[in-house]
Amino acid sequence: MSNFSIGVDLGGTNLRIAAVDGQGNLMEKVTLATRTVLGRDQVLNEMCGAIRRVSDKYKASATLLGVGIGVPGIIDMDTGMMREPPNLPGWADYPVRAEIEKRLGAPVILENDANVAALGEKWLGAGRNVADMAMLTLGTGVGGGVILGGKIWHGITGMAGEFGHMTGEPEGQPCGCGNRGCLEQYASATAVVRMAQEAIASGDAPGLAQAADSDVEFSAQEIYRLAIQGDEGARRIFRRAGRALGISLATLINGLNLEMYVIGGGVSSAWEAFSPAIFAELRQRCMVYVATAPADPLGSSSGASGQVEPRAGRKTIITRALLGSDAGLYGAARLPIESRSIETAVWGFGNPSGL
Amino acid sequence: MSNFSIGVDLGGTNLRIAAVDGQGNLMEKVTLATRTVLGRDQVLNEMCGAIRRVSDKYKASATLLGVGIGVPGIIDMDTGMMREPPNLPGWADYPVRAEIEKRLGAPVILENDANVAALGEKWLGAGRNVADMAMLTLGTGVGGGVILGGKIWHGITGMAGEFGHMTGEPEGQPCGCGNRGCLEQYASATAVVRMAQEAIASGDAPGLAQAADSDVEFSAQEIYRLAIQGDEGARRIFRRAGRALGISLATLINGLNLEMYVIGGGVSSAWEAFSPAIFAELRQRCMVYVATAPADPLGSSSGASGQVEPRAGRKTIITRALLGSDAGLYGAARLPIESRSIETAVWGFGNPSGL
Repeated sequence: MSNFSIGVDLGGTNLRIAAVDGQGNLMEKVTLATRTVLGRDQVLNEMCGAIRRVSDKYKASATLLGVGIGVPGIIDMDTGMMREPPNLPGWADYPVRAEIEKRLGAPVILENDANVAALGEKWLGAGRNVADMAMLTLGTGVGGGVILGGKIWHGITGMAGEFGHMTGEPEGQPCGCGNRGCLEQYASATAVVRMAQEAIASGDAPGLAQAADSDVEFSAQEIYRLAIQGDEGARRIFRRAGRALGISLATLINGLNLEMYVIGGGVSSAWEAFSPAIFAELRQRCMVYVATAPADPLGSSSGASGQVEPRAGRKTIITRALLGSDAGLYGAARLPIESRSIETAVWGFGNPSGL
Repeated sequence: MSNFSIGVDLGGTNLRIAAVDGQGNLMEKVTLATRTVLGRDQVLNEMCGAIRRVSDKYKASATLLGVGIGVPGIIDMDTGMMREPPNLPGWADYPVRAEIEKRLGAPVILENDANVAALGEKWLGAGRNVADMAMLTLGTGVGGGVILGGKIWHGITGMAGEFGHMTGEPEGQPCGCGNRGCLEQYASATAVVRMAQEAIASGDAPGLAQAADSDVEFSAQEIYRLAIQGDEGARRIFRRAGRALGISLATLINGLNLEMYVIGGGVSSAWEAFSPAIFAELRQRCMVYVATAPADPLGSSSGASGQVEPRAGRKTIITRALLGSDAGLYGAARLPIESRSIETAVWGFGNPSGL
């Protein structure tokens, strides 16, 4: 009998559930609204009901390895509790993992959403041929995940990979975290819109001003649309985002020397607009390396990536993510598979006491 | 029969050799000048001669596990060659490891000097009770090393830990590496002297000007002496160094979430002068943490450290190194011991083919 697992992407807006087989093939995917207004218990009930409906369909023909859930917040890996999840009010200091396990009768693994996105890209996306990589997720905020030796690197308290709060400009834009000049203040969707509004207020971005007037939901996506149409004000904003990303990536490259850095999240669809500025910064700031951008970034395909070539030795690859919003779903589904394969490896040694 | 190993710290000025037993006890230490003017082969001959003299004394009563050598430069771990070592001209692209092994007839491990310093502090110094730590070495330049799971983390090309080239000020002081505003430009001994000279030139550091006039070798140490005597110009320089260290440490803490960050190297003896500025930055810039400096940094002992307390969970410790200039020597001696214990662990499983 073959195996499968359930991956869940529990966001503040959408709740997505997928059944995935051990090779990463999608068996079924369900998207629901996360009805946070109904309260935590109701969301848990709806989620567990949907998980059960999906898994029941396949249980006759395959073994459920477990359920992996990506959540927006920091997880205490020991207790399975979340710490101050901003988009899930009322979920902090509540035994989320234990409650879901009780309802489902299956092993559950909770994981930070940026970490599962990185694991998804490692398993089936941009990072599938590398062992060590970091991913930056450019969404409403900027999250990140670190994969070392193929596994999520948690750090001591589960906080590793908070690259959105790397300091890029010591006296820069104040950030909600208390710091100034965090990467998140230049490379998130929120930051793109804020920088556009600042440009409009300063009076030197007529294209943006016109677009903002005619669009109630003046979004990062709309600003990107203007940028690819050649609007200089919009292009300047993505150059600023790319510059901040380049500064932070250079620090990561010099400090960690990983094989690959993946840029994902919603804003990464504007790769063509911001990636040339990333490579311009890397060319200047990477110590032993010479950064080379893709030959024609504006004309490049969706999988376009650049490389940072060391003067000797292996290249460092900077690339955009390949799985889009499914990265977290696949990464979550990977968690029980990985956990099981560790158990198998251990048991594979035979009786541990005989070692 | 007990075991011992030989650690070598091959610097551009001094060549130091130590015999160390498996528990980290020093058996013998020898310091020679590194006579680089005589050329690479002569330095290798002198080094191998000294290693042989030391090891021959103990070979009758203990087994030599091997020789670990810390060198100032980046090592290609596969080939055992060095890449562009600035203080050892003529050593690049030369099979250093193979040559030394041939002369000594013993296994040799080459390692970057900042990495062995981190390993030494992990083994016997500030980090002896933690598994995951990073060390910043503030010397002529700023080096660094990362220890994960008790082992040196090399990255893909052996470059990991180049924290001296983290960007702290995107438009700051130009650095020899091609970047601007590198940590090294604010927190190295070279930077301390440069900042003092800038302050003298600007005319608002009379104490420094007077000291520079009367001191041919106007050094970072002399500037530190003025700082602890209360000279405001000198104190300002160490605050600047501490600020740069705090900005970079906050990025490392937010991004890597390691248990401990150790500050070593010659400049770290000025800990009392620069550490308050580190903690001031960390209080502002660390995301989930609240940094607490030692209660009385100026009156604190040589082992003084501060902590970055998370709102929940384990503390992150920021501390100065404990082993001084011996960290690299002990770390180098640790390399063959560690390498041997890996072999032992593998063979301890019995016949590998039986797994």
